[in-house]
Amino acid sequence: MPDPIITLTTDFGASAPYAAALKGVILTLNSAARLVDLTHEIPPQDVRYVAFFLATAVPCFPNEALHVVVVDPGVGSDRALLYIEAAGRRLLAPDNGCWTLLEGAETARVIRLAEPRYWRRSVSATFHGRDILAPVAAHLSLGIDPAQLGPPVRDWVRLVIPPPRTIAGGLAGEVVFIDNFGNVITNIPTDGLRPPDVLTIGDRKLQGTFRWVRSYSEAPPESLVVLGSSTGLLEIAVARGSAAQCLEATVGMPVTIDWTTGDAGGSAG
Amino acid sequence: MPDPIITLTTDFGASAPYAAALKGVILTLNSAARLVDLTHEIPPQDVRYVAFFLATAVPCFPNEALHVVVVDPGVGSDRALLYIEAAGRRLLAPDNGCWTLLEGAETARVIRLAEPRYWRRSVSATFHGRDILAPVAAHLSLGIDPAQLGPPVRDWVRLVIPPPRTIAGGLAGEVVFIDNFGNVITNIPTDGLRPPDVLTIGDRKLQGTFRWVRSYSEAPPESLVVLGSSTGLLEIAVARGSAAQCLEATVGMPVTIDWTTGDAGGSAG
Amino acid sequence: MPDPIITLTTDFGASAPYAAALKGVILTLNSAARLVDLTHEIPPQDVRYVAFFLATAVPCFPNEALHVVVVDPGVGSDRALLYIEAAGRRLLAPDNGCWTLLEGAETARVIRLAEPRYWRRSVSATFHGRDILAPVAAHLSLGIDPAQLGPPVRDWVRLVIPPPRTIAGGLAGEVVFIDNFGNVITNIPTDGLRPPDVLTIGDRKLQGTFRWVRSYSEAPPESLVVLGSSTGLLEIAVARGSAAQCLEATVGMPVTIDWTTGDAGGSAG
Repeated sequence: MPDPIITLTTDFGASAPYAAALKGVILTLNSAARLVDLTHEIPPQDVRYVAFFLATAVPCFPNEALHVVVVDPGVGSDRALLYIEAAGRRLLAPDNGCWTLLEGAETARVIRLAEPRYWRRSVSATFHGRDILAPVAAHLSLGIDPAQLGPPVRDWVRLVIPPPRTIAGGLAGEVVFIDNFGNVITNIPTDGLRPPDVLTIGDRKLQGTFRWVRSYSEAPPESLVVLGSSTGLLEIAVARGSAAQCLEATVGMPVTIDWTTGDAGGSAG
Repeated sequence: MPDPIITLTTDFGASAPYAAALKGVILTLNSAARLVDLTHEIPPQDVRYVAFFLATAVPCFPNEALHVVVVDPGVGSDRALLYIEAAGRRLLAPDNGCWTLLEGAETARVIRLAEPRYWRRSVSATFHGRDILAPVAAHLSLGIDPAQLGPPVRDWVRLVIPPPRTIAGGLAGEVVFIDNFGNVITNIPTDGLRPPDVLTIGDRKLQGTFRWVRSYSEAPPESLVVLGSSTGLLEIAVARGSAAQCLEATVGMPVTIDWTTGDAGGSAG
Repeated sequence: MPDPIITLTTDFGASAPYAAALKGVILTLNSAARLVDLTHEIPPQDVRYVAFFLATAVPCFPNEALHVVVVDPGVGSDRALLYIEAAGRRLLAPDNGCWTLLEGAETARVIRLAEPRYWRRSVSATFHGRDILAPVAAHLSLGIDPAQLGPPVRDWVRLVIPPPRTIAGGLAGEVVFIDNFGNVITNIPTDGLRPPDVLTIGDRKLQGTFRWVRSYSEAPPESLVVLGSSTGLLEIAVARGSAAQCLEATVGMPVTIDWTTGDAGGSAG
């Protein structure tokens, strides 16, 4: 059997020594662990961003991977640290909702970490990733039963990305993610969606100036396109350019789509 | 035998979930694969940059490594995806020339990926790295014969970094790469090159204000030096500073070197 | 026994091909090596930064890890390259003091790398990380005796972070590190420290506008706090904000703490 996989997702930034410290703590307890960096560049303390990140990345992994998530604005408060099993995925994360966009979140098995014997001997007030989550991850990778980590809990913080609302002649949603290319991803699912006639993002109303495409390459460079993202959400992009820059888009900005005639159903063209 | 090595080179950016998705897809199919990040910070869609990157990095690796390259401005178009064997190196990359600065590119064995049975069941129009290249890499690491991936091809996109031209009294080339330290690397080979008397970069003509050195440390801090780069190309640097900033250099900017007397041959001093 | 762990700490930047080159060289000589990235984002040539980084990260690792450090402003000069054993830790680093904040530095076993048979056949003048440190790391991971690498040395460059000075009614220190969250870390140990009444950083004198806390979460968002860092040093932070930005703090900036009454000893509250 291959050695256990432990992934790391943090907001520490690549230049800080904190991600390295996590790695060292894990390898000290289980030197056979295989560490996989997902990212250390989550925007600082941005729970919503990491929730979207995990919802995109975690489903690609095999179930046996253990995902350690350290984006923890509440460190040092009485917020809990959790072990989570959701639809076969296993995570360790602060109780701030960061994992709750994953499939199976509503019916997850959740345990509150409460057994200091699986922690570092001395636990700082500001770095629970190193002192609690990392050693617990190592112990889990060595095969301890999660039930030993603490009591099961039935309530936890839930992060809800509101589904788009139906409005007269269209749908109203918002920007949920902007990627490295400047592609703007919304909370509007594209499955079965009919190409809209009008797209409004923030204060900009676009009509006749964008194209509905299957991929960026169907449009000439610099042109504005709307498409289904690789995770099935309405995405606004500029072929070989940055839509976020062109549209001055930011996460949370309202997005509406409208059809001047007919209904919202039908084929996505 | 050690577990198979798969390297990843992308322009996804460290904060996006796309590199993590690649890793998950590979580990799901072959959980024994050993993933090595080369970089996820290629400037977005910069084929020329990644070509230089690969030409520097790939020759350092053992032949058994498999290099997955996802810098793919043409995703969703009819550009092919390729399996490549060049001088013993093995790569998976879009057909955009990104691998063609490697030794052996002209006589490479190239196969067009055409067998969907080695792909993800559902292939998106915008993320072929996750849906085609990553699963094919995993299957290759499990030992399938590359011939099963698709038909051999004899033509592919070639990226050519033009060799410098001989001009009256010197050579005319260009900037091909600027590194993290602000060192400016040109397309002018230094093997056998005689130290130039005049260096022109963009609009700036330098004469008597730079030193030809073997290494940065031969010159006082802040001084401008010209040397052979670690890959054998003429490099312009500022000792403990940034030549790119001092000279406002950008990739593609013309660079000429001149000798006020004599010929271009001889020792590099 | 698990395969050998080799960590990498460099200032190459994530987008340059140099870290990838190191990895390739190591894996070519020992394809069983397990590479762990600590960071490639040390600020260019910042020896003091990497010294602080290593002092934080290396103690978390198991002793069997081998730490390769390539922050090397003196590359190409006659500065030595070193193999170091300090309090059970093993490192390869340029002789610039970067490892000398580690525990055991004063009584370390240090060897100067002098045996070219463990180097790359051709050694460039500008990239000793790739040409000397990486192959030596690989040979060490294959089990060669460090004594074969070169002669022992008893003198080396020492980096000293001056301890804070006692001044009338307080202590005078400086900023030694600023992390990704904008937390400002000083050279003032907090063990046994009494909460100060006055804090001066650069030109700003703060009195009654900061709170002494155990963790960020004890204070309302945006408020200025002073606390013991996860490495036991006085840290100035803004809850859910950036102290570095608020205070325009930079590394090296003077920091003093004062008590308006009583002495410097006693409990940290």
